[in-house]
Amino acid sequence: MKFGILREQGDHRVAVVPETIPKLKPLGLEFLVEKGAGETAFYSDADYAEHATMCSRKEVLQQSDLIVSITPLAESEWASLGKDTVMISQFAPFVDEEIVAKLVAAKRRAFSMDMIPRTTLAQAMDVLSSMASMAGYRAVLEAATHLPRFFPMMITAAGSIRPAKVLVLGAGVAGLQAIATARRLGAMVEAFDTRQAAKEEVESLGAKFVVVEGARDDKDAGGYAVAQSEEFLARQRAEVQLRASKADVVITTAQVRGRKAPILLPKETVALMKPGSVVVDLAASTGGNCELTQDNKVISHGGVTIIGNSQLAGLMPQDASLLYSNNMLNFLKIIVKDGALNLDMGNEIIAGAFITPQLVPQDANN
Amino acid sequence: MKFGILREQGDHRVAVVPETIPKLKPLGLEFLVEKGAGETAFYSDADYAEHATMCSRKEVLQQSDLIVSITPLAESEWASLGKDTVMISQFAPFVDEEIVAKLVAAKRRAFSMDMIPRTTLAQAMDVLSSMASMAGYRAVLEAATHLPRFFPMMITAAGSIRPAKVLVLGAGVAGLQAIATARRLGAMVEAFDTRQAAKEEVESLGAKFVVVEGARDDKDAGGYAVAQSEEFLARQRAEVQLRASKADVVITTAQVRGRKAPILLPKETVALMKPGSVVVDLAASTGGNCELTQDNKVISHGGVTIIGNSQLAGLMPQDASLLYSNNMLNFLKIIVKDGALNLDMGNEIIAGAFITPQLVPQDANN
Repeated sequence: MKFGILREQGDHRVAVVPETIPKLKPLGLEFLVEKGAGETAFYSDADYAEHATMCSRKEVLQQSDLIVSITPLAESEWASLGKDTVMISQFAPFVDEEIVAKLVAAKRRAFSMDMIPRTTLAQAMDVLSSMASMAGYRAVLEAATHLPRFFPMMITAAGSIRPAKVLVLGAGVAGLQAIATARRLGAMVEAFDTRQAAKEEVESLGAKFVVVEGARDDKDAGGYAVAQSEEFLARQRAEVQLRASKADVVITTAQVRGRKAPILLPKETVALMKPGSVVVDLAASTGGNCELTQDNKVISHGGVTIIGNSQLAGLMPQDASLLYSNNMLNFLKIIVKDGALNLDMGNEIIAGAFITPQLVPQDANN
Repeated sequence: MKFGILREQGDHRVAVVPETIPKLKPLGLEFLVEKGAGETAFYSDADYAEHATMCSRKEVLQQSDLIVSITPLAESEWASLGKDTVMISQFAPFVDEEIVAKLVAAKRRAFSMDMIPRTTLAQAMDVLSSMASMAGYRAVLEAATHLPRFFPMMITAAGSIRPAKVLVLGAGVAGLQAIATARRLGAMVEAFDTRQAAKEEVESLGAKFVVVEGARDDKDAGGYAVAQSEEFLARQRAEVQLRASKADVVITTAQVRGRKAPILLPKETVALMKPGSVVVDLAASTGGNCELTQDNKVISHGGVTIIGNSQLAGLMPQDASLLYSNNMLNFLKIIVKDGALNLDMGNEIIAGAFITPQLVPQDANN
């Protein structure tokens, strides 16, 4: 079974790094790697060539039985694939509502890494978690480089500097990593989350958990926030406004899967923030938690810098690729058995990730 | 005595911040502040106006007895000053060998903050130290945002990430703050310094002190490195090369006052560094510790990012201004007595900083 690794278009990461390939060989796979696949993530063709055949993009597309990319292949390239090639990527069917129908119409079988159920069992292959963790870390670095101040308290011969105050909205994977990183850098950190379960984690990282009473909790929402009542949201906005007005940095991470992100920082709140303060909005791609956020832009509004970026992991492509690659390794151990594709739809990971069940052949499970 | 605070040209900092002014009033000073002086450092005219008269630049230049700026006033503006106005700035006479003669010829008296002796007593007014400390902190943030990897060790469901390795060359004020910040962020840190006295400080910050035997030590060089023998430098380069080839980040801080910075990273060493690794060269303005450094530029050379910047404190103008302002406060307490200038050349701080002693009036010490 031939496994193809593509060079990403418009992304610096690569889905599988050289050191993962020897770990995948026992599954009965052969490897085709597009030349330059790892270049922007600092993995060389020479390192891939030790374990794989280096090919042109056309050759990888035509000859692979399984083909992997982090961002989905453009539809215009589907015709270049072999007839039975199975794609593995992040198709985001919860956003792109037509993608599954298009794949089925084109008879293109596909796994979507972002549809793997977010269970404990599947954690080792959860690319959303690994990338969110990187984004949380990176959000703090972005804030620190845009802030006109120190993060840590400084006691110097020239006087003392108070530590920066950081407010983190949403204590999921990204939020927790942001809290941990801001604490590492010496900031005072407060965090909000509607899930009471987050309290202990937030406090264990040395941050203050801010409670807004009356939230709907849902432990089964797969790590996402659930929609809240308008009355709760109003109280939350008031509390956030108070805290944000005293903060140097606000990092927002609240996303509701398949829906527009909730507005946690309306422009009235930004107007109360201190000159020089910084907002990093990780929900930018789904509309943003800050009303003023512009996706993939850094703007300044009344002295407040607002950074809209939901792809921060991509700014650290070497480690992002390594973690993604580890996720792929763990996933491939499930979907490849004895050198052949395992389409056992009784397995909840396979059933979740295989987004074209209409195309399961009659003789599946071979 | 009228004290003028200028808006900087080409620098985001301001020499005196609003909160310092009430502390200066007991010295018998009145304050003139150029409109917008604090704008780029996030200090508002409204805050200044509580304690000072807001003026045009022309008014500040003409009416001030003492006038302060972080970067020196352009010569073309000297004629706009009042006849007896005394300037306080950073004239860097150890670099600009003609500046003192020019000031004397123009009968312009001046204090240079960068000439304050670097003694324990003068530490509270040492702007070179306070800005170097900020630069050391900021160098780590610059490295971390350019590195395609995490700084801390990460143990995740998708596998472990090893911590970044950071090599700091020169353990003066900037180097020590870089070490402390890199350690905060979870990196493994090694540091070099020719001064054995640095060993204990380096180790107390949790970093490894790398010893190269046979260095000339000079405890009286005011925190600067002294020139070393060619034989020692060759051994040092070999040791640095070995460490740099294994590092993810190299931060260089070695400057010799009034001389070109020593080359610690020749291009042969950069060629051995890992793709994706980052050099931050704080000695860029005096030629750089890395042979390939370009001042005020970020370049990429064979996969290694080289950041040349000796003005990193300016990227955090709010706190940089606060520390500079505290330094000014402590300095002014020495040079102003009962509302008049104190030119007691028997005071080593005044004698060091007053760079136009030819212009001490006969009735000095009044």
